[in-house]
Amino acid sequence: MSLKGNALIGQSGGPSSVINASVVGAVTAARDCAEIETFYGALNGVAGLLSERMIDLFREDPEVMEAIARTPSAALGTCRLKPNDQDLGRVLEVCRAHNIRYFFYIGGNDSQLACHRISELAKQGDWEMRIIGVPKTIDNDLLITDNCPGFGSAARYAAAAVQFVGRDAEAFGNIEVVEIMGRNAGWITGATQVGRREEIDPPHCVYVPEFQVDPEDFLADTKAAFDAHGFLVVAVSEGFAFSEAEIETVGEKVDEFGHRRLGGVAQALADMLEEEIGVRARFDRLGNLQRCMVYCRSAVDWQEAYAVGQNAVERAVNGETDVMITIQRKSSDPFVFECETTSLASVADEVKTVPRDWINERGNGITQQFVDYTLPLMQGETEPVPMGLPAYPRLQKHPVTAQLPAYERRK
Amino acid sequence: MSLKGNALIGQSGGPSSVINASVVGAVTAARDCAEIETFYGALNGVAGLLSERMIDLFREDPEVMEAIARTPSAALGTCRLKPNDQDLGRVLEVCRAHNIRYFFYIGGNDSQLACHRISELAKQGDWEMRIIGVPKTIDNDLLITDNCPGFGSAARYAAAAVQFVGRDAEAFGNIEVVEIMGRNAGWITGATQVGRREEIDPPHCVYVPEFQVDPEDFLADTKAAFDAHGFLVVAVSEGFAFSEAEIETVGEKVDEFGHRRLGGVAQALADMLEEEIGVRARFDRLGNLQRCMVYCRSAVDWQEAYAVGQNAVERAVNGETDVMITIQRKSSDPFVFECETTSLASVADEVKTVPRDWINERGNGITQQFVDYTLPLMQGETEPVPMGLPAYPRLQKHPVTAQLPAYERRK
Repeated sequence: MSLKGNALIGQSGGPSSVINASVVGAVTAARDCAEIETFYGALNGVAGLLSERMIDLFREDPEVMEAIARTPSAALGTCRLKPNDQDLGRVLEVCRAHNIRYFFYIGGNDSQLACHRISELAKQGDWEMRIIGVPKTIDNDLLITDNCPGFGSAARYAAAAVQFVGRDAEAFGNIEVVEIMGRNAGWITGATQVGRREEIDPPHCVYVPEFQVDPEDFLADTKAAFDAHGFLVVAVSEGFAFSEAEIETVGEKVDEFGHRRLGGVAQALADMLEEEIGVRARFDRLGNLQRCMVYCRSAVDWQEAYAVGQNAVERAVNGETDVMITIQRKSSDPFVFECETTSLASVADEVKTVPRDWINERGNGITQQFVDYTLPLMQGETEPVPMGLPAYPRLQKHPVTAQLPAYERRK
Repeated sequence: MSLKGNALIGQSGGPSSVINASVVGAVTAARDCAEIETFYGALNGVAGLLSERMIDLFREDPEVMEAIARTPSAALGTCRLKPNDQDLGRVLEVCRAHNIRYFFYIGGNDSQLACHRISELAKQGDWEMRIIGVPKTIDNDLLITDNCPGFGSAARYAAAAVQFVGRDAEAFGNIEVVEIMGRNAGWITGATQVGRREEIDPPHCVYVPEFQVDPEDFLADTKAAFDAHGFLVVAVSEGFAFSEAEIETVGEKVDEFGHRRLGGVAQALADMLEEEIGVRARFDRLGNLQRCMVYCRSAVDWQEAYAVGQNAVERAVNGETDVMITIQRKSSDPFVFECETTSLASVADEVKTVPRDWINERGNGITQQFVDYTLPLMQGETEPVPMGLPAYPRLQKHPVTAQLPAYERRK
């Protein structure tokens, strides 16, 4: 059962405010494990691994590592590479060359798929290596786990931001549309409604990709809200679309992959609302700050991120492999969770969307179930927030010596 | 010298994270003044005043007022109305009808002009009324005053946001362009460089409206920064333009007043950089959060805002009129200021831009003088930050009974 060798960890996909906590949780747990000789960090995830760009994490200053755990974004660097078969073969080759017996990869459903395929390949190649997926995504769209580390902080930022820009719109008596990350799942967008305490508070209408509304209903509902409150705040997922695809203003602009990358759904909706209601309509896109605005970090989220990293190492050393760590909610008030596992195959490449009955009947808001689910994830402070100007360290990045010839990737 | 009657205060233009502190500072000071019988708040500034939309601020719960002082955006509502001659006449008429003898207006250079014209009109109409302008603008572009309440908090938010999204860009090794408010003055954009502690820290290049660079120099400087650091973060004012107006990508999109309101300078620069450097370039527009992101509020800024409101009342009661309150910096470390005054005419409708020698020679960054000026304005916490979800009160808004026939505004 006992397997001695080196460990490796990598970060993949969009960073979050807490993803570094998972790295530090894993490395800290590994320091106590006789089985793990040294702990490598892959620079820029699989992309760096292909060319053996790795660093020795055990050699980093433990004090710096503590601060890194609280630093936003991915300290090891990240990538969006979907490894092909050749890449996967190379990954295994690199693991063999560096005697890597423990493989931890932090990411979303893409990354879990990659882990699963590496796991299969290792078995075929008779290389004993324990592979554990560590969940991370602000989008909160991984199956089976109660929630995904990264989501609680993004949700809190979005909810706070909508309250703030909503006050600005209220002062002018105008219209504000806020565009929020989420191409296929409306988790962060829905969470903005958690910040709504009174009827007058924003957001008045919330639109998610899971529910396509009729443009007529959209205009009727938003106008009613404007008439009731004297201002209007709409929160919308970037992936939202109307049920009639012909509504060109939205259909055309919503596509991020277009050449001009101009505007988005918030801008299109703002244009529609300005024309319909006759009041200045502005829009804000919360953009990349959704995954790095540390001043809105949730302690619950941070604790989850640290725990999944730590738990991954403990389980791997105890013999588990080909699984992703999951969060199991034991209670909501107070929020208590435990780390469990699910097979990598069960979460690979799948998307968890907001359930239909967590969205209201009109499709313009969320239900109390959504609020009850999300609110506990947005709680608590991680530490005295560095309100002055951010001062976060970087890793020293002691390089690992390459053992293989350079990699030439075929397209 | 002693003048008994009612007072009025209004908020104008874009809100800030601290503008409500000026209202509460004024109202609190007025409670101790026998001269001021009651204190009206104009709803939506001059726009509301035209139709006598006023509330009684002395009747608001003092505890709520304390919380309002810490609430972002304009609690009385605001407006962008530039009053015409007819409007100004009406304002005077409303003041007479409600025995308003003290007139306080919080705003930028437009508002100071309006105050000055009301002051002239009151003199001509033989209505004794003391008129004091209260400075406010996140743009920091009022003349004579050392700085403008609202700027320090906006500067801190922008500086923090650039650090955060910069970490995100660093993790991917890509390019990020951040668009920051400022059509004519680059104060907030320049302030983002104050957050740069090491050479590798963002922003690597900073572009302000005061200095037009050649596109060739822009590409050379940004490419050099990318090559040096492996990622690139550019901070740019929304009003920045290249020296050659023919550069269509920027010239076309920079205009906010175009019909389509598509994109802006950040998007245009990101497109240019992606093509030139061959790496994914993203952009973020900090948008309206620049004037309401309370989690980044500066205590120095808040104290200034409170003090200018308070000082305006004290000076008016002591006989001063037709002046704007200014901030006089007495020392930078520790930051010490006093409130002084300047004539309304001296600041009306004028813009203070960043001095040439506070911008570096290449026009791609700011100098140490700029840093030394700005850093003290971004310091200190205002209170335990409500890091959970924002919970701010609203005024009760006890209405004042109208005394005049309805106002019909001629275009």
